[in-house]
Amino acid sequence: MNLDLRDYSVRTDLAVESKEMAETAYGGPVPGLNEQIDEHDGIKITRLDVTNEAASRQIGKMVGHYITIEVPGLRSQDSDLQEKVSAAFAKEFGLFLNKIGVHENAKVLIVGLGNWNVTPDALGPLVVENALVTRHYFELAPDQVSPGYREVSAIAPGVLGITGIESSEVVQGIVERTKPDLIIAIDALASRSLERVNTTIQIADIGIHPGSGIGNKRRGLTKEILGVPCIAIGVPTVCYASTIVNNVFDLMKTHFDQESDEGQPGQTKQILGLLTELSEGERLGLVKEVLEPLGHDLIVTPKEIDEFIEDIANVIASGLNLALHEAVNPDNVATYTH
Amino acid sequence: MNLDLRDYSVRTDLAVESKEMAETAYGGPVPGLNEQIDEHDGIKITRLDVTNEAASRQIGKMVGHYITIEVPGLRSQDSDLQEKVSAAFAKEFGLFLNKIGVHENAKVLIVGLGNWNVTPDALGPLVVENALVTRHYFELAPDQVSPGYREVSAIAPGVLGITGIESSEVVQGIVERTKPDLIIAIDALASRSLERVNTTIQIADIGIHPGSGIGNKRRGLTKEILGVPCIAIGVPTVCYASTIVNNVFDLMKTHFDQESDEGQPGQTKQILGLLTELSEGERLGLVKEVLEPLGHDLIVTPKEIDEFIEDIANVIASGLNLALHEAVNPDNVATYTH
Amino acid sequence: MNLDLRDYSVRTDLAVESKEMAETAYGGPVPGLNEQIDEHDGIKITRLDVTNEAASRQIGKMVGHYITIEVPGLRSQDSDLQEKVSAAFAKEFGLFLNKIGVHENAKVLIVGLGNWNVTPDALGPLVVENALVTRHYFELAPDQVSPGYREVSAIAPGVLGITGIESSEVVQGIVERTKPDLIIAIDALASRSLERVNTTIQIADIGIHPGSGIGNKRRGLTKEILGVPCIAIGVPTVCYASTIVNNVFDLMKTHFDQESDEGQPGQTKQILGLLTELSEGERLGLVKEVLEPLGHDLIVTPKEIDEFIEDIANVIASGLNLALHEAVNPDNVATYTH
Amino acid sequence: MNLDLRDYSVRTDLAVESKEMAETAYGGPVPGLNEQIDEHDGIKITRLDVTNEAASRQIGKMVGHYITIEVPGLRSQDSDLQEKVSAAFAKEFGLFLNKIGVHENAKVLIVGLGNWNVTPDALGPLVVENALVTRHYFELAPDQVSPGYREVSAIAPGVLGITGIESSEVVQGIVERTKPDLIIAIDALASRSLERVNTTIQIADIGIHPGSGIGNKRRGLTKEILGVPCIAIGVPTVCYASTIVNNVFDLMKTHFDQESDEGQPGQTKQILGLLTELSEGERLGLVKEVLEPLGHDLIVTPKEIDEFIEDIANVIASGLNLALHEAVNPDNVATYTH
Repeated sequence: MNLDLRDYSVRTDLAVESKEMAETAYGGPVPGLNEQIDEHDGIKITRLDVTNEAASRQIGKMVGHYITIEVPGLRSQDSDLQEKVSAAFAKEFGLFLNKIGVHENAKVLIVGLGNWNVTPDALGPLVVENALVTRHYFELAPDQVSPGYREVSAIAPGVLGITGIESSEVVQGIVERTKPDLIIAIDALASRSLERVNTTIQIADIGIHPGSGIGNKRRGLTKEILGVPCIAIGVPTVCYASTIVNNVFDLMKTHFDQESDEGQPGQTKQILGLLTELSEGERLGLVKEVLEPLGHDLIVTPKEIDEFIEDIANVIASGLNLALHEAVNPDNVATYTH
Repeated sequence: MNLDLRDYSVRTDLAVESKEMAETAYGGPVPGLNEQIDEHDGIKITRLDVTNEAASRQIGKMVGHYITIEVPGLRSQDSDLQEKVSAAFAKEFGLFLNKIGVHENAKVLIVGLGNWNVTPDALGPLVVENALVTRHYFELAPDQVSPGYREVSAIAPGVLGITGIESSEVVQGIVERTKPDLIIAIDALASRSLERVNTTIQIADIGIHPGSGIGNKRRGLTKEILGVPCIAIGVPTVCYASTIVNNVFDLMKTHFDQESDEGQPGQTKQILGLLTELSEGERLGLVKEVLEPLGHDLIVTPKEIDEFIEDIANVIASGLNLALHEAVNPDNVATYTH
Repeated sequence: MNLDLRDYSVRTDLAVESKEMAETAYGGPVPGLNEQIDEHDGIKITRLDVTNEAASRQIGKMVGHYITIEVPGLRSQDSDLQEKVSAAFAKEFGLFLNKIGVHENAKVLIVGLGNWNVTPDALGPLVVENALVTRHYFELAPDQVSPGYREVSAIAPGVLGITGIESSEVVQGIVERTKPDLIIAIDALASRSLERVNTTIQIADIGIHPGSGIGNKRRGLTKEILGVPCIAIGVPTVCYASTIVNNVFDLMKTHFDQESDEGQPGQTKQILGLLTELSEGERLGLVKEVLEPLGHDLIVTPKEIDEFIEDIANVIASGLNLALHEAVNPDNVATYTH
Repeated sequence: MNLDLRDYSVRTDLAVESKEMAETAYGGPVPGLNEQIDEHDGIKITRLDVTNEAASRQIGKMVGHYITIEVPGLRSQDSDLQEKVSAAFAKEFGLFLNKIGVHENAKVLIVGLGNWNVTPDALGPLVVENALVTRHYFELAPDQVSPGYREVSAIAPGVLGITGIESSEVVQGIVERTKPDLIIAIDALASRSLERVNTTIQIADIGIHPGSGIGNKRRGLTKEILGVPCIAIGVPTVCYASTIVNNVFDLMKTHFDQESDEGQPGQTKQILGLLTELSEGERLGLVKEVLEPLGHDLIVTPKEIDEFIEDIANVIASGLNLALHEAVNPDNVATYTH
């Protein structure tokens, strides 16, 4: 039999997903990856360093530092948990700034990528609305700014279909004029698995690259382009119908493999047929082959996206306000967001 | 081998989907169903009558008249097509009113079910906002109402979580006080297949039943409860992750069966394994068995839902305004919606 | 000289404004009015009882109990102050319920009057969205409701122009079906003076009367109509251009009178001319005579209305949640609003 | 008697208001101003040229060309009238571009100033959302752009309080990168008279200057700063409480002066006292003296601002789309706005 499949690379913006896939393909730990995992209070933090080019090629992610904060409970709209995640994010982000050598008074420009009219793509603009900006005080009367505040500005550059200008170009223009020391870019991502949608935050010092995120960017936001380092903060808010299907295949395979181990050998193959022998990329190719001609490989988002996106934007904005300004603390952080 | 599966009934709010499934199970046309199909300009209209109790049991839908308007192109946000669909909806809805014996001056109460804070559930309230209401003119100065207008009122009763009151009770209270002759209830539905999401409108003279639509209703809106007939207008705006997966299995099965017919017999079974031998309900049970314990059987909606829901609410409101008021015509219909 | 003026009655929904005007006209305290004032932390609370029909006629307000909470600082968007006002509102509202004999387990229906599409009229619907409703839990499983919660439901009945139904009729229908013991109706009001816009909350046990509030109601929400008592909570969010002008005349008169007392007798008359000799009603008549033919007697609202209305809706919803449910306290109240 | 008043200059962003005031002060036509007025269909168009520095100083407006479109009926929300105004705006704007020498293929950047969270300040961002942008097509595949389209981009730079960056700096950065030939900046203005709020559109080739508009700009958008010409389009959407009062004094003065002419000489002075002898600036000073210490000189906007602002943004966006792209005409213009 002859399944003539295109082998789709399963695109994901999350380094932890790339690593998982690479390890499956590689059959074990990939050299050059350092990983450290902390888990407490329902919050799992993975610190992954891609230390060299070989590892980078292997997992298809750039050399750099990646932090992933996974909180399955975030979907339950529990405001106590959200506060805890903000605090954890802030602590982790502060450590991250130290680690990558960002000094204490570095001037920050927060960039909220995405489209405020498309709910699952509105994460960036929503974070911008809730970020504590101070640059204008520093510009107008620098000696009157209370201690404990850092110089922060923020912009939502809009999307190509509304502005006719690449967000990268808008940001470049602003960077040239306002001379920040660091860019923090927030973007909504597409996930490989439905379970990570709205439950995962990734922080990485690699900037934003063409094709990442929900929107179709043709130019990136990187140190090469901007002249200053760019930290990307991303949250998966959508996934493709095809990846859902693919993801379920995986879950079924695991499920039946487990049962096989418990005394029903061969069952997985019997039930799932040749599908079990395909690589993930081949299987995805198969699903896309069926869905795309019908125009049904939709990008989908959970029904409750309106509330999810507000919650997680608030978590990130609060976390950034805590991390960037010493004067902001858990007792007063709520007064800075809307 | 022993797959011990719960046999899920595949719930759908769409009669055409129920009929399809029943025919697959039954192995041919179901007696007691009359169907007539028109197709033109990319708009497919299916008029399905469930004429007796036997047929009703067979397809799991009440005895009554069902119209389904399918327009795959609706997702492309083409305003010309939207106008055509409004006109087709209006024409079909007018014929439907005649067919079920609603007289020309019947007073209408439009009920917009759903939650305006949850985009894919906001269809009903959005239609209410754009419906042309006239009852207050009839109440205040009936002799001054221009000819060509019918007495129409409209209400969005809210959802249980916000009001603490079943929408059915709110509507009953209003019906008792305002004595309309006919209820038209608009509701967002869950679809069995992703392709029908935001592309299909169903009109039926059976009212709204507990458990239908996106929200969880415990009481219905039916002639028995309200004392006046209730026409339900529904649009699928979401579907379960599990139904997407199930739907893709079907598409794959069809795909490989076709190839088999073209010279590769047995291939479907080889590729898809035992999955091919399961009934749709069993397969869905299997998918749910894998997804639910992980909390991943999310209800999803297309990423572009904000724009879709506005467009289709506008199509329906325009269609109702055209159908209910003689004085509204294609030239002035746009001035009545926002 | 002969100024032939219509003597406008200066309409206000606020009892404290009516009392002020009556006292000016009467030349001293009006018999039958009991007033007690508390002031602390920038919050002024006036408890005014209109004890008999004579007093009622004199001030043009019904016999009943009126509480006015005035907080000039509310416009400064200080979240600490907002919390204090919520707490003060809750305490005062609790005392008010006792005073008018509402028992502890009285079932409450909160009615949010107004139009969510017109920002200054959206107060009622916004309070409904943030009220803690529990009736559905009492209906479904009364024995499983935790102690400390009262049975509360809430509805935003919409406005005549959108529904074609008087909000009074919608509420009557719902009251008949759901049998609450008490109605709490929230409404945006028109103020006589700009300074009270968005800074004043009035609570009164007289219900809602035709013509009150921003919207034009033809029927009221009163004990006579509904069969159960109705407490009205109102906040002025708009005023007429003409009342602003009139209000400024007053301020100027007071200003120059003060200077006169300080040694420049007769100055007021000299500067402001005959305007000083007109009654407030005559002066308003004059202003309207000039503005109305030009269509310029607009109803206006502060530029910052979007934020004001959200803040004050939150204050009232939090206050109601605190007052109606023993289980809600200052530590957890924020988790119940959005 | 001695009224010690600050003489306020009555600030207005509208050249026609400046001219009126200057003529009152000057006692006749101001040399160096050319004015031409057209009026038809309820649309009054005033073309005012400030031709030299002397005239400029006299009216406090820069040398340049000003077009004012006044449509009192715009407040009545008549969609036919709105279409007519769009068409008139487009025609006038086209002539204006010719007059000031903008060539046919000039690349345009539309700048929507203001804050989308503050309804009366959201005009600019709303126009940006509805403008037809094409620059990305010209960038990606210039030879595939259909004839009849011009290269247009659009940006809403946000406000200082949210971004920490002057909108002027944001625009400068973008201009330097994208090299447009012409800027069109849209801004919400403050009016001197309530009657012009939401009824008047001003077009001027003088750019945006610090302090103009609702927001407080410290830097402008002018040819000097940007290197390319900047046309400003403004609509008054708010006015100060004090200017309303002042405006009514004027109306009253005119009113009584008319009656005086009809046989009651001296009446104005008798009724309005010394107020009649003050200059407009002195009177405004007096009103502010009374209102400001109380914090009551609020900036107000009509109650119906939500709908007004959407309507007029749509009028301007449609007008720009018609004027800038030959391929857009009255039959298809509606499909380009939302």
